[in-house]
Amino acid sequence: MIVLFTDFGADDIYVAQIKATLLERLPQGTHIVDLLHSVSNYHIRAGAHLLAALQDRFPTASVFLAVVDPDVGTDRDAVILQADGKWYVGPDNGLLSVVAARAAETQVWRITWRPEMLSASFHGRDVFAPLAASIANGAFPADKVEKIRALQVRLGSEDLPEVIHADHYGNALTGLHARHVPQSAMIAVRDRRLPYVRTFAEAPANRAFWYENSVGLVELAANRTSAVRLLGIEIGDSVRAIA
Amino acid sequence: MIVLFTDFGADDIYVAQIKATLLERLPQGTHIVDLLHSVSNYHIRAGAHLLAALQDRFPTASVFLAVVDPDVGTDRDAVILQADGKWYVGPDNGLLSVVAARAAETQVWRITWRPEMLSASFHGRDVFAPLAASIANGAFPADKVEKIRALQVRLGSEDLPEVIHADHYGNALTGLHARHVPQSAMIAVRDRRLPYVRTFAEAPANRAFWYENSVGLVELAANRTSAVRLLGIEIGDSVRAIA
Amino acid sequence: MIVLFTDFGADDIYVAQIKATLLERLPQGTHIVDLLHSVSNYHIRAGAHLLAALQDRFPTASVFLAVVDPDVGTDRDAVILQADGKWYVGPDNGLLSVVAARAAETQVWRITWRPEMLSASFHGRDVFAPLAASIANGAFPADKVEKIRALQVRLGSEDLPEVIHADHYGNALTGLHARHVPQSAMIAVRDRRLPYVRTFAEAPANRAFWYENSVGLVELAANRTSAVRLLGIEIGDSVRAIA
Repeated sequence: MIVLFTDFGADDIYVAQIKATLLERLPQGTHIVDLLHSVSNYHIRAGAHLLAALQDRFPTASVFLAVVDPDVGTDRDAVILQADGKWYVGPDNGLLSVVAARAAETQVWRITWRPEMLSASFHGRDVFAPLAASIANGAFPADKVEKIRALQVRLGSEDLPEVIHADHYGNALTGLHARHVPQSAMIAVRDRRLPYVRTFAEAPANRAFWYENSVGLVELAANRTSAVRLLGIEIGDSVRAIA
Repeated sequence: MIVLFTDFGADDIYVAQIKATLLERLPQGTHIVDLLHSVSNYHIRAGAHLLAALQDRFPTASVFLAVVDPDVGTDRDAVILQADGKWYVGPDNGLLSVVAARAAETQVWRITWRPEMLSASFHGRDVFAPLAASIANGAFPADKVEKIRALQVRLGSEDLPEVIHADHYGNALTGLHARHVPQSAMIAVRDRRLPYVRTFAEAPANRAFWYENSVGLVELAANRTSAVRLLGIEIGDSVRAIA
Repeated sequence: MIVLFTDFGADDIYVAQIKATLLERLPQGTHIVDLLHSVSNYHIRAGAHLLAALQDRFPTASVFLAVVDPDVGTDRDAVILQADGKWYVGPDNGLLSVVAARAAETQVWRITWRPEMLSASFHGRDVFAPLAASIANGAFPADKVEKIRALQVRLGSEDLPEVIHADHYGNALTGLHARHVPQSAMIAVRDRRLPYVRTFAEAPANRAFWYENSVGLVELAANRTSAVRLLGIEIGDSVRAIA
């Protein structure tokens, strides 16, 4: 299974070009799953924590093609990461580094190969997709990489006390794991303090709260309305648990 | 064929988690089709009528995973519905009830099974997807359900005189079937009365009208502009046919 | 491979109906790729130039189902185009004509067949999808078409000095090929003149520029912000290269 995780937008011209590149190289029946194409544009840190939280739901041997890459075309490196039996292909700009830091076992390779036709702005199509296809085919591209000790840009394994994603309901996901926050705690964001509730249906209408979302993160929400709009939240806003 | 019909958003973190769950359980070559992920958020009644209109285009034995589920995590029931040879898995909150009421033959089962890992907010992934996969595999999960006489929440088979969907062109679909409305009738919405036209090209520019859309519903539209914006329409707005 | 290129929206009720029609007719394992569903609504000329630029990335024998069709339901013709080994099915309204004009070898057929059930507004589902499936199956539908000499509506092969797409980052694609514009040239749009840069990372923050995008077109952009918003650009805006 190849899993796409990008800021390319789900209805734009980029994802299909990646899929065409993959499909020309994959055996019939290999699945390509769009995990998310609305990572906040250019927001590597939010993307790194979101990927770390979401990858858990995908089976061993999944190949993640992960691209949030504002510095494409510069000399930032490109890498392949193997972490606890899953594969990740993308830029060495921090995006894969939270997954790596939290994994028990990792291996990292720097991508030395460049294709004959290489655009300055779309390595997702020209570099990452061909290599992801090779890995999914069980043909590790040893001639196109060199083993390195670790990623160059490393964001660390710690929880991120920030808003990392605003979903289409207007809920705000944070980089805090709910298991690290007691249910008695309030979550402070902007000038507000939000109490815990277990389910949306338990919350009073139009009142913001926090709860443990379905991937284990602290999420700021409101019952049948947009917490993002209600609270004026933006990606990157600080949050803090107050005992 | 598994057909997804939700308010989860097409470019958000939910659909891929459902697909990963399905793909781990389905035989190669089973198709997953995204019917719609932009059912108006939490709007069960609109979703129920939209699903009833759209399911018609899908082949017998299709398995619909239908989720508009604002009360997930409460004690609302979860069900499997078989209706005229198609399968539906989702909450017993009315969403499947228009399909059921219009079908010639139905059977209904309450889902008694709960998985070991059950999030409070994402039964689409944790409950409905595994059961939909079982049905698509031809392995009805008899040990995880109990037969019941009928759905608990039933919206009835009648047309719904309301706006049920705003498409991205700005056309407004209603829950009225065009075969029930004479072409000489005007459709009243907000403070306006709209005449019938057969095709968009026949309508004068910037004038709203109604026509029979491609799934047989009365649709409010305007030629090359947004009727929704032109008329200030919202999901749930009442409409009325005036002879 | 069947490639969908429309203004139907990626999260709306239309694409899934086309896919259901295709999947009932295709052999297992045929891929359907969503190239773009956000062609500017009704904008045939922009769509024609965008399709011509994007089709290049898809393999020989791909079948494009291309629909931007504001005059559906009138007497505009429907056609099948073969151009340099790829197939295109859609309306004869100009949409396929830039591809045709730039191809070395073309053949064109008018679609004479109409299905028993034909909606006035959705030939993508009712006419184009069944024929695209036949072609993808290797069964050219000779009994449903007649050979004609050329498309009726022809936009020509020349570059289009207009904005043809605004991507979700806020970059504006034009119909100019970068190989026709010297890097020393400025691009004039609205009341602004934009200089060339090679990569986003080379551009100063919040300053608009032009560069050669990953499909070879002149694109107007800004580093980590929206050029479309910064410059007030709309689809169809004129652009001009100034030596």
